[in-house]
Amino acid sequence: MSIPDLDFIFHPRAVAVVGVSNEKPGAGHAYIHALRDYGYRGNIYAVNPRGGETLGLKIYHSLSEIPEPVDHVISVIPAQFTPGLMHDCAAKGVKTVHFFTSGFSELGSEEGNHLQAELLGIARQNGIRVLGPNCMGMYCPATGLSFSINLPEQHFPRESGHIGFFGQSGGYSIYFVQEAGQRGLRFSKAISFGNAADLNECDFLEYFAEDAETKIITTYLEGVRDGRRFFRALEKAAARKPVIVFKAGTTDSGRRTAASHTGSLAGSSRLWESLLKQAGAIQVHSIEEIADIALLFTLLSPPKGRKLAVIGSGGGASVQAADECARAGLELPSLPTTTRQRLREIYSTESGHIFTNPVDTLMKPELMPETMRAIAGLDEVDMLLLHVAYDTWALFDKKLITEPTIKAMVGAATSTGKPVVVALSACASAESRKLAMEASQRLFQAGLPVFPSTARAATALSRFISYYDARCPAT
Amino acid sequence: MSIPDLDFIFHPRAVAVVGVSNEKPGAGHAYIHALRDYGYRGNIYAVNPRGGETLGLKIYHSLSEIPEPVDHVISVIPAQFTPGLMHDCAAKGVKTVHFFTSGFSELGSEEGNHLQAELLGIARQNGIRVLGPNCMGMYCPATGLSFSINLPEQHFPRESGHIGFFGQSGGYSIYFVQEAGQRGLRFSKAISFGNAADLNECDFLEYFAEDAETKIITTYLEGVRDGRRFFRALEKAAARKPVIVFKAGTTDSGRRTAASHTGSLAGSSRLWESLLKQAGAIQVHSIEEIADIALLFTLLSPPKGRKLAVIGSGGGASVQAADECARAGLELPSLPTTTRQRLREIYSTESGHIFTNPVDTLMKPELMPETMRAIAGLDEVDMLLLHVAYDTWALFDKKLITEPTIKAMVGAATSTGKPVVVALSACASAESRKLAMEASQRLFQAGLPVFPSTARAATALSRFISYYDARCPAT
Repeated sequence: MSIPDLDFIFHPRAVAVVGVSNEKPGAGHAYIHALRDYGYRGNIYAVNPRGGETLGLKIYHSLSEIPEPVDHVISVIPAQFTPGLMHDCAAKGVKTVHFFTSGFSELGSEEGNHLQAELLGIARQNGIRVLGPNCMGMYCPATGLSFSINLPEQHFPRESGHIGFFGQSGGYSIYFVQEAGQRGLRFSKAISFGNAADLNECDFLEYFAEDAETKIITTYLEGVRDGRRFFRALEKAAARKPVIVFKAGTTDSGRRTAASHTGSLAGSSRLWESLLKQAGAIQVHSIEEIADIALLFTLLSPPKGRKLAVIGSGGGASVQAADECARAGLELPSLPTTTRQRLREIYSTESGHIFTNPVDTLMKPELMPETMRAIAGLDEVDMLLLHVAYDTWALFDKKLITEPTIKAMVGAATSTGKPVVVALSACASAESRKLAMEASQRLFQAGLPVFPSTARAATALSRFISYYDARCPAT
Repeated sequence: MSIPDLDFIFHPRAVAVVGVSNEKPGAGHAYIHALRDYGYRGNIYAVNPRGGETLGLKIYHSLSEIPEPVDHVISVIPAQFTPGLMHDCAAKGVKTVHFFTSGFSELGSEEGNHLQAELLGIARQNGIRVLGPNCMGMYCPATGLSFSINLPEQHFPRESGHIGFFGQSGGYSIYFVQEAGQRGLRFSKAISFGNAADLNECDFLEYFAEDAETKIITTYLEGVRDGRRFFRALEKAAARKPVIVFKAGTTDSGRRTAASHTGSLAGSSRLWESLLKQAGAIQVHSIEEIADIALLFTLLSPPKGRKLAVIGSGGGASVQAADECARAGLELPSLPTTTRQRLREIYSTESGHIFTNPVDTLMKPELMPETMRAIAGLDEVDMLLLHVAYDTWALFDKKLITEPTIKAMVGAATSTGKPVVVALSACASAESRKLAMEASQRLFQAGLPVFPSTARAATALSRFISYYDARCPAT
């Protein structure tokens, strides 16, 4: 692949943050901190007509005073001053302006629309690309750009990965990088693009389709401006890479809210469903579900089919898991008599257990490795789901997810090539959640995909399989 | 109401735990600990043919040696010895026997069925009632019975409340008491009844319908033995009290698993749906959802209608909340122009906010009380949902749920009589979950119902309203 046209926005030679106060810390300071924290290597400039000094930086009165070319400007000034800033950017030869500033078309007022059109006009005349307004901007760990403003350090990954994200909501863009990061995913680039006056969902979709660093494309959308172009781009992108789409604003109330949020025209639920399917994209219904599917594409090879073996503890949990897997469109084959017999030997008894499928191991983590081995190799089984609840007995025997269990899971995945996933749920107690989090982290580190419930795991697996089914229909 | 016939099982004069080892701690010890911890006031006896001493108790060789009448026996002996125990119970005049022991009809073997039938025969001949086999037994904080075996102390409430529960799964019975307890709910009685050889779902349903201490009936069911009797009992119970039913085993896989778990015949999904609706029960699809609805019945008066005002932080979160509320069948009326104007005054700007409905407050907890006051009194609004995400900005400003906000919510609920509920979500980081848990606890303590997502809150509210709609159709 060649380097796509838009790539330059992620490699600015110098960045100016305009609207940095020398009195009280605000968004300007937060962006400067973020650039420094993520290792941005160019020069960072602070601008404010009042001048002064902050964070060890001289505050320039205007862009024109800055002694070198500036490629990228981050604006945190009030909306009414933004046309003036655009003229300054034109004079300085700035390539991209990111408006954190809000107060434009999302207000639904004539004024807001007018101001946004004015910015766009100046940008077009001068060949400047605009990000936003009303957005968080760019996160690109490889070049040190970040919108992790005001977040504790550990919440955004420093390392690069292969997930590309573009999102219309600033809050949800931050949330997704954070949530996915905590679950072990890493990003090539993430972009929050708000009102999309200039650069919009089509630009980013086309970019990510071409970008060699991006293997999985993900997005939160409230609406699209140019339906034809978007779906053409989507088809092209989905032919190359998995594209996971969370389209919000699909009810009347949601559409109205999307209009107030980012001035989007949202489109009906059914229309989107059929268009996304036709284009070969994977539709999900929450930020968390984007991460669920991205996790599978990142960690697993495609399973051969829909036949799942479920292993875990608890009769009620087993019945519910069976229901949820079946509802998600997965099959739970009965285990062969010989396997049932082998399980009886492993557990010395069948009393208190279930040895059909799901297999109820009744809280015996020490027998989990042998149980995995008895089941993983079966021809009847295309993949394995282990479910563990940090609720009841888990709280007195805290060793549910032991090192031998993790090794056995990794071993089963490696030796059979079959996907092995874990559903790890907690109850509403602080202790339970803490234990579940710790176990999750150890599983992530071992490269196993972890879900917070059997329902979420089953839904993700089913969508993952459907993706491949649509590409290589079974003969 | 008169005292129902079955009430005696919750008031045993003395309890014997049969199968207590004097060597290694097991289930017998755990039941003795539980009885002591929950303040059971009668005498507790340990029995094992080998005799000895444990936990400061003499171990009797047999029931007949015990020097006073024993009303209730808890059996933790292996299945093959249970017929002998039943004969001993008959000789001793025991009223109820709870078999924690498993290895009966749930095995699906002729032997297992035969053994269970044998127990039942002896019980019927001697007027003994049997709980189980293959179950956890009874939790009744008022009389000191508990199945919180091996759980850390804080996980089961000590105080009594007005929720009655009966569940076919031991693990899920424990899980529900714990989960609901953590969310501020309290129980009259909870019963785990396993294979239901004798006492079954109909007995408990009829009991709870009559029991004055129980105001809300809840159940986890895998199947029923006598459909006619069950639905007659359900109709009667639902005419008196809310009955919340989680019926599992409604898919083919689930049904097969239910048969292996508690030997239940599960019935089809559609059949159950229509029968539950016809009987006036509330159907849910998980243990957590039982708690969601019970929380509303415990804390709220019925709302006048389906019109909801949604207040919270984040544009994406607002769009998603609007979608989810609409999908759940709730209405989000537009706010009057005067209210929108009032919000503009409160926040000094509309920029960055949404002041339609949902209202996006953009992380300004200090303005929440005034925002609540501006909206709660509106005629257009039947109830309020506040949503807060402990994900992004929440982690740098940890004071999202402040005391003034809690006061304002309680005040709005009190002064308007309108339901006020909170959706409080966390992301996959330990810090986020800890903060969300702490805030939840403070909200519970203030008597506000808290849900882990807007989707869960919206679904619960919709079912809550439908319950009253079915009773008092709008004119």
